[in-house]
Amino acid sequence: MIRVGIIGGTGYTALELIKILLRHPDVAITTLTSRDESCPALSEVHPEIRGRLDLNFSIFEINSFTEQVDFAFCCLPHAASAAIVKQLLACGIKVVDFSADYRLNDAATFNQWYEVEHPDADRVGSVPYGIPELFRPEIKNAELVANPGCFPSSALLPLVPLLGQELIESTPVIIDSKTGVSGAGRKPNLKFHYPECNESVAAYGVGKHRHMPEINQIINRICNQEISATFTPHLIPMDRGILSTIYVSPKQGVKTGALREHLSDFYRDETFVRITDALPKTKDVTHTNFCDISVSQCGQFAVIVSVLDNLIKGASGAAVQNFNIMMDFPETTGLI
Amino acid sequence: MIRVGIIGGTGYTALELIKILLRHPDVAITTLTSRDESCPALSEVHPEIRGRLDLNFSIFEINSFTEQVDFAFCCLPHAASAAIVKQLLACGIKVVDFSADYRLNDAATFNQWYEVEHPDADRVGSVPYGIPELFRPEIKNAELVANPGCFPSSALLPLVPLLGQELIESTPVIIDSKTGVSGAGRKPNLKFHYPECNESVAAYGVGKHRHMPEINQIINRICNQEISATFTPHLIPMDRGILSTIYVSPKQGVKTGALREHLSDFYRDETFVRITDALPKTKDVTHTNFCDISVSQCGQFAVIVSVLDNLIKGASGAAVQNFNIMMDFPETTGLI
Amino acid sequence: MIRVGIIGGTGYTALELIKILLRHPDVAITTLTSRDESCPALSEVHPEIRGRLDLNFSIFEINSFTEQVDFAFCCLPHAASAAIVKQLLACGIKVVDFSADYRLNDAATFNQWYEVEHPDADRVGSVPYGIPELFRPEIKNAELVANPGCFPSSALLPLVPLLGQELIESTPVIIDSKTGVSGAGRKPNLKFHYPECNESVAAYGVGKHRHMPEINQIINRICNQEISATFTPHLIPMDRGILSTIYVSPKQGVKTGALREHLSDFYRDETFVRITDALPKTKDVTHTNFCDISVSQCGQFAVIVSVLDNLIKGASGAAVQNFNIMMDFPETTGLI
Amino acid sequence: MIRVGIIGGTGYTALELIKILLRHPDVAITTLTSRDESCPALSEVHPEIRGRLDLNFSIFEINSFTEQVDFAFCCLPHAASAAIVKQLLACGIKVVDFSADYRLNDAATFNQWYEVEHPDADRVGSVPYGIPELFRPEIKNAELVANPGCFPSSALLPLVPLLGQELIESTPVIIDSKTGVSGAGRKPNLKFHYPECNESVAAYGVGKHRHMPEINQIINRICNQEISATFTPHLIPMDRGILSTIYVSPKQGVKTGALREHLSDFYRDETFVRITDALPKTKDVTHTNFCDISVSQCGQFAVIVSVLDNLIKGASGAAVQNFNIMMDFPETTGLI
Repeated sequence: MIRVGIIGGTGYTALELIKILLRHPDVAITTLTSRDESCPALSEVHPEIRGRLDLNFSIFEINSFTEQVDFAFCCLPHAASAAIVKQLLACGIKVVDFSADYRLNDAATFNQWYEVEHPDADRVGSVPYGIPELFRPEIKNAELVANPGCFPSSALLPLVPLLGQELIESTPVIIDSKTGVSGAGRKPNLKFHYPECNESVAAYGVGKHRHMPEINQIINRICNQEISATFTPHLIPMDRGILSTIYVSPKQGVKTGALREHLSDFYRDETFVRITDALPKTKDVTHTNFCDISVSQCGQFAVIVSVLDNLIKGASGAAVQNFNIMMDFPETTGLI
Repeated sequence: MIRVGIIGGTGYTALELIKILLRHPDVAITTLTSRDESCPALSEVHPEIRGRLDLNFSIFEINSFTEQVDFAFCCLPHAASAAIVKQLLACGIKVVDFSADYRLNDAATFNQWYEVEHPDADRVGSVPYGIPELFRPEIKNAELVANPGCFPSSALLPLVPLLGQELIESTPVIIDSKTGVSGAGRKPNLKFHYPECNESVAAYGVGKHRHMPEINQIINRICNQEISATFTPHLIPMDRGILSTIYVSPKQGVKTGALREHLSDFYRDETFVRITDALPKTKDVTHTNFCDISVSQCGQFAVIVSVLDNLIKGASGAAVQNFNIMMDFPETTGLI
Repeated sequence: MIRVGIIGGTGYTALELIKILLRHPDVAITTLTSRDESCPALSEVHPEIRGRLDLNFSIFEINSFTEQVDFAFCCLPHAASAAIVKQLLACGIKVVDFSADYRLNDAATFNQWYEVEHPDADRVGSVPYGIPELFRPEIKNAELVANPGCFPSSALLPLVPLLGQELIESTPVIIDSKTGVSGAGRKPNLKFHYPECNESVAAYGVGKHRHMPEINQIINRICNQEISATFTPHLIPMDRGILSTIYVSPKQGVKTGALREHLSDFYRDETFVRITDALPKTKDVTHTNFCDISVSQCGQFAVIVSVLDNLIKGASGAAVQNFNIMMDFPETTGLI
Repeated sequence: MIRVGIIGGTGYTALELIKILLRHPDVAITTLTSRDESCPALSEVHPEIRGRLDLNFSIFEINSFTEQVDFAFCCLPHAASAAIVKQLLACGIKVVDFSADYRLNDAATFNQWYEVEHPDADRVGSVPYGIPELFRPEIKNAELVANPGCFPSSALLPLVPLLGQELIESTPVIIDSKTGVSGAGRKPNLKFHYPECNESVAAYGVGKHRHMPEINQIINRICNQEISATFTPHLIPMDRGILSTIYVSPKQGVKTGALREHLSDFYRDETFVRITDALPKTKDVTHTNFCDISVSQCGQFAVIVSVLDNLIKGASGAAVQNFNIMMDFPETTGLI
């Protein structure tokens, strides 16, 4: 039985993580921390799991924490996370980090996009990027895994195999993403106030979203050249789910059907990536760890549609998948 | 006082049309027709206007209809519409047609995309396309105006001035549109059954949507060359509103700011098109006749966001705007 | 042309008020105040009316305000409102007050329910309660009208005629209300954060809601006895609309049909109250100033369903209706 | 390993049932039937479980069905269900029936409310009503269990213990229920067309809903007298979840706290019923088998709020709970 601690346990990803881990036969959640000094009751913060987990929130303290846990999931905001992760690693605790702190492989890029000095710059660049289907071997041997962003997961799962096989041009790569509001987290803000975003669609962060360098870094590595994907996220009036519509140009002579076929081959043995004939909708995958992907044609472009649940395959489900790989459990445990 | 008849009065666009016309000081709605033989009570079909319009639905009959009306709005499905419109015109009744029947300027293209023989093929090609801000002079003198599709309106309002001025390349033009469910009409269908489309986003009709030739025809005319815009509509869990995200390449040396400036100049005297600095959201324009447009930059692409209410600026509002132009009323009457 | 000032112009009721007044031919909005020292641009706060009102927010200052306006709508929170209203009245400005400050006819009751000392206690009890259909004569001659709460409006419109005519018992009167989230105002709060209240229903304030004494005060006055209605509000995942389901006992020998008939008679000449045969839904009245009411039977109880738009008939529409009465304009001006 | 067949597998309750059974370690789903002659692919009807269950829909045929299954869940509409259930029982197959066919204990009452002759009238009255927490002993020994209606479950879980202990008066019992749209099933219908029910609340079936006799029958049995609960369902714009607000009168001298205490005692050892201090919301229980219940006071009435997921605790979760009891599995298997 692995003793697991969750750091930053009041948000939506933490709730999903708890729910998944409660179904995991080899895990005992032993500690939940919150930075809220008032330490509210668990059933008040997450009434959904009332009666199912006999724990209270505590303030993180490195000694007591490391005594109680074998493995940590860190759900803190960027910068706050790395400051704690480096302490955990120093104590020999393995970690999946939900923040962006170890996703980029260059501290300068991090500092620029996140406008803060990276608290653990030396480690940056050596941490596996936790999309299991793409980077399983590195994840397997890691002490720390950088859990990927939700938008990047939806885009990279179809793009990496196609770019890697040179089936599509490296430009244009246009990623038009639509996300449910839980992606914005649990902190109240006028933009996510119900009457503001209900019955409305909006683009946001055009040209400025922090998931853009994350996407570009991976596809640059795959293509071995400087690529600039165009990425536009949109806020959709629903709780959860991401649908990314991706416009790419097949290489001369490559048919759309060949793209679909390659993706089918590439993911043939993967449980959680499904290549579909019909256009998938987010509802096909919400509350699951699946990512469904279709490929269609529109004029000279291939139109890829990729859907996943931002809180599960885009966060906590992927985290547990990474945990399973790191700890040698069957990869689907707790997730199906 | 203009006596107005509405043909096909049970749908959502008809309801919006009735509500607008009830606020129009120079209009009396004298006839409402429905193809439903049971002729349900108006307050049953549209409880919202209960007590505000003392009319019942009748079955369309050309003689009694033309006796009672000076002007007709035809809200029938494609093909059904043209069959009636040609009779109305023969009787000297002016018409705004909501269907797609007179939008394309080539009957063969119509037959191919709509899979039916056009019932009034001779007239096709000579009917103004009713986006008032773009084609006002032709509309002014017309007996019949083809009210434009909701998606094309959202795309063409920003694209036509930019392509016309040669500020952007004619390829790629990628239009990623998001629409509320009322765009699908009022006929029950599993796809639009509440629990199917609520809390979900889906792309549909990729590469096959009938608004694509409509968009391409207009921009081809403007650019004087064969252009293929890529158009992907998405169904969003909300009642109304369209947001189109349009990805274009500015011509060499043209800055994004110049695109915005040109749009501002172009629409300076237009009441219903607003060029905004902030990214617009559909809620800024739902229940109004406005179309709000912004221009941003993302890498080498300009990202245009255009929002309107599919039932108003994308249908019934535009129709009344066309009516006002055809009948020499101030263009904003009933619409503001 | 009446010069109108709106105090506290950043909220949802203020936006609806502005939109209605922009359609009112006899009104010019000359001042908009906000307590936000940053005085944000109007188009930033209310992008919907961008370009339609050439005003900026200012901080309220009694002298400049009274120079510019003939009539004031005060949309401030309770207690803040009365402190300003008494100054306005002293300067001879007529006022419709949206707050609860002058709704209760007893300052002690106010102090107890609102947990603050009333800033204008002497005037309490002499201010008409602004449901036009019920209290038109007093409103007509008033300098100040207390605009009613949204829940009380939905409940009192059916209850007052029935209790006044002694057609129903004075107990039990059970009011189960369902409201859209805009009723909670525009200030962000975890409870109204999109992912918290979307896809969920909750009761709140059971036995403690401040609209309960407001309802009881009016029905006590009508019945001339101490009555305690039971009132439970519920938060519904939608923007706007209130539906109140009201359970009452017809007096011995009174049939449900007689209740409906009496309501029909009572409201025969009223434009904005419609007694319906079918069960009304909130969508029949949202974005309008109508209140639709039905009466059904379930066992020994009559089940009354009453629907209105909380921001219009439940707030800004009623306010303009009161304004029209106070200023001798036709009552429906701007509202239909 | 129990071989399970699902009859009528295309609806929403069937989908939830499949998902639960896929997590049940002792169950193999061996047959899925549909009355749709076209036998659509499973992944087309339920894309969510694509790749997880290698079965196609077949048309029900008694011999092949009984060869392949040990236990049947019957998800057919009323009357259609009993016609098949009696055949299954004759072949020795145990059944949980989702329809209303065996819920009422009197065929005449069934015929009257469902307006059809009961196809298995002799068995009516001898079948346990499948609320496990209330009727576990009968369920344990049954060949057939009548799975309860979703509204009755939400109302009876709090009412039965309180009426049984004579802590509340038997009148008035007013049940005001709010349900998500999935409760209406998967068949398209104008009432459940997205733009009709989105952003709207409506009462329906006032005084006529078929769950009313079901509720009354059980509380009459408990109280040993003719009781008429007043029951009004409302349609809420959300996928799933029921919240019932129940107004009852505590007996003379009984405090609201005593009601809560008795419910806490009564359900102390039950996993799936949680008595809460805070007012529960549907989101606390959707996608789970829990029913959360609170008791508050408003004047002389106790206000009970009860929430559950109509598709799980109100249908498929309860069904599997009954299955577990009937087959001697731990009651929470697959459900937590």
